[in-house]
Amino acid sequence: MALDFNILNVSEAGGRRAQLHLPHQTIETPVFMPVGTAGTVKAVAQDVLESLGAQIILGNTYHLYLRPGHEAIRRMGGLHKFISWPRAMLTDSGGFQVYSLTQLRKISDEGVRFRSHLDGSSHFFTPEHSIDVQIALGADICMAFDECTEYPADRDRAKESLRLTMSWARRSLDHFRARQDEVVWRDACNGKTQSVFGIVQGGVYADLRRESAERLVEMDFDGYAIGGLSVGEPREATLEVISTVLPLLPKDKPRYVMGVGFPDEIAQYARMGVDMMDCVIPTRAARHGLLFTSEGRMNIKNKKYAEDQYPPDPTCGCMVCGRYSRAYLRHLARAGEPLGGTLNSIHNLAYYLGVMQRVRAELRAPQATTSRLETNPTRP
Amino acid sequence: MALDFNILNVSEAGGRRAQLHLPHQTIETPVFMPVGTAGTVKAVAQDVLESLGAQIILGNTYHLYLRPGHEAIRRMGGLHKFISWPRAMLTDSGGFQVYSLTQLRKISDEGVRFRSHLDGSSHFFTPEHSIDVQIALGADICMAFDECTEYPADRDRAKESLRLTMSWARRSLDHFRARQDEVVWRDACNGKTQSVFGIVQGGVYADLRRESAERLVEMDFDGYAIGGLSVGEPREATLEVISTVLPLLPKDKPRYVMGVGFPDEIAQYARMGVDMMDCVIPTRAARHGLLFTSEGRMNIKNKKYAEDQYPPDPTCGCMVCGRYSRAYLRHLARAGEPLGGTLNSIHNLAYYLGVMQRVRAELRAPQATTSRLETNPTRP
Repeated sequence: MALDFNILNVSEAGGRRAQLHLPHQTIETPVFMPVGTAGTVKAVAQDVLESLGAQIILGNTYHLYLRPGHEAIRRMGGLHKFISWPRAMLTDSGGFQVYSLTQLRKISDEGVRFRSHLDGSSHFFTPEHSIDVQIALGADICMAFDECTEYPADRDRAKESLRLTMSWARRSLDHFRARQDEVVWRDACNGKTQSVFGIVQGGVYADLRRESAERLVEMDFDGYAIGGLSVGEPREATLEVISTVLPLLPKDKPRYVMGVGFPDEIAQYARMGVDMMDCVIPTRAARHGLLFTSEGRMNIKNKKYAEDQYPPDPTCGCMVCGRYSRAYLRHLARAGEPLGGTLNSIHNLAYYLGVMQRVRAELRAPQATTSRLETNPTRP
Repeated sequence: MALDFNILNVSEAGGRRAQLHLPHQTIETPVFMPVGTAGTVKAVAQDVLESLGAQIILGNTYHLYLRPGHEAIRRMGGLHKFISWPRAMLTDSGGFQVYSLTQLRKISDEGVRFRSHLDGSSHFFTPEHSIDVQIALGADICMAFDECTEYPADRDRAKESLRLTMSWARRSLDHFRARQDEVVWRDACNGKTQSVFGIVQGGVYADLRRESAERLVEMDFDGYAIGGLSVGEPREATLEVISTVLPLLPKDKPRYVMGVGFPDEIAQYARMGVDMMDCVIPTRAARHGLLFTSEGRMNIKNKKYAEDQYPPDPTCGCMVCGRYSRAYLRHLARAGEPLGGTLNSIHNLAYYLGVMQRVRAELRAPQATTSRLETNPTRP
């Protein structure tokens, strides 16, 4: 068994409060997943991520394949062990990074030839190879290899791209099912294995998205992602794609929207029924001095904070807001001190995880009421 | 009262186990002081420094004067409050940074005109101004303004440099005594104030070092530093200067050797009777992937650690060695990930602080035996 998805409550708007049982961790969903590109959530130590309540983090297959290499990671017991992260992990397929980071890509039905952004060396990724790399890495959840359709893309281009992604999804799934027992921690986790999610593509075209979802559902993945978002399209388009696709996905499987978004977006999508989201925004923005707070976005480098002794967000209970002032964070950012990036990242992750925690509390509410009544049937 | 220095035990070799009572912290000496140049020990958060057992950290007057500015820090309650560090602090005088970081210096009897390494702006530091800046910053210990004699320097040059440093020491002390009540936390610390240390210079010339020490002792500082070391001289020269100067300093006042050294050096000097040392080596080396361990120095970027799953130092109890492998630290260093600098710095600081803790235990031993006998007089 790979995953078990246990829905506790569904709101009228479709938001789901659930538990996702993965080999390394039971995840309370909806969940926000910090991104640990190269096996580290940039500038934040693993013990800090734990104390922030991060339940699952991402690793990027493309980066880890190039450095230190998936075979080395497998020999060292898999990604969890390599980076000393005992909770859950998810790896993407590498498709998005091939799309966004490399030059001289050459795409064929067979796969993608690309040059490394590190040293220009030539590599060839197929769906089978992406899955092999992800099995070597050994995250709890793998993703099917897809082509991320660029924005804007005309209908013909989006259709052709989708054809490729659907063919690759089939090959990814078949290869995964044949090999999923090979994950290095299988015996240590009582015979549990990894899961694999399919990725809905189709650009901003509702009919293509629909076709994509239906074909993937037919293939019977362990969960479903909506990809090809956050590639420059307007926010209404993102929302429309999500609204179109969600009703087509099986109710009893986890739904993951990849690469979104700002705090209000992740809350909005979670309330609509998205169970999982990841985004580099909280950590990337942090390194540029942008903080998310209950009062909105704050550019901590702004001169007006030069002697501001309030915490970044006075209503926030994170370890950064509990100890440091805006003036100090501004000073660190202006001086280019590494501690600035670290503290800003910790706060932003606390903020994102807090947003999702509040959405979970909202979604739990009716359930909680019910169970209180059931426990005390004589009380109103 | 500024400081109280209470010697608990003196070894045959002259090493002293003591307590240095400062307004913000009682320091167990001999002590190693991590360097927090711009108000942050690079890449290490304050709560981590606390858990490592750091008792006192440095701030650099030159850097903090230029950014964010000493008046801003005073208005925010002083450096302790600004950076949220409740334990002890020491600021240098700015003399060493003017010597090592700036160009177009123009030195006169009155002071030094120099250009900022940040923006090229022109500034003039006098002994009085350095003390004013240090009082605004409000560290527990200030340093007299000195000229750091370069190495090599011929006798005439060293003698002239020393003449200046001695005149500036007198002016620093007089100005400090006139203003020491102005420190912003005086009332909050029950009327306690800062202390000021004089700095022995004189290059590698024993007679000049002797003259310098004697004249400073006559001025009656709260403590004494040996400066002008770690400027490129051979290690035997460093040792000889320390051996020459230590016997000339008052036994009942703290002795501080500035800017040294490697782990074996700080242990050696502490055993000779040096009470305080600071050095950027543990954090700077860490950022370049150099780790100090019980088995010697380790360049963590070395290929031989690519799949080495041992902790950096298997005998070390620090939080890094307790969780991460050499292979992971190598990966972080090669990938230029900020977490690498942070984890390496934490380990190296733990190593330095551990060295000093073991020296303190050695120096305490006879005393501890005595007090056990006294507590249990009937037992052998």
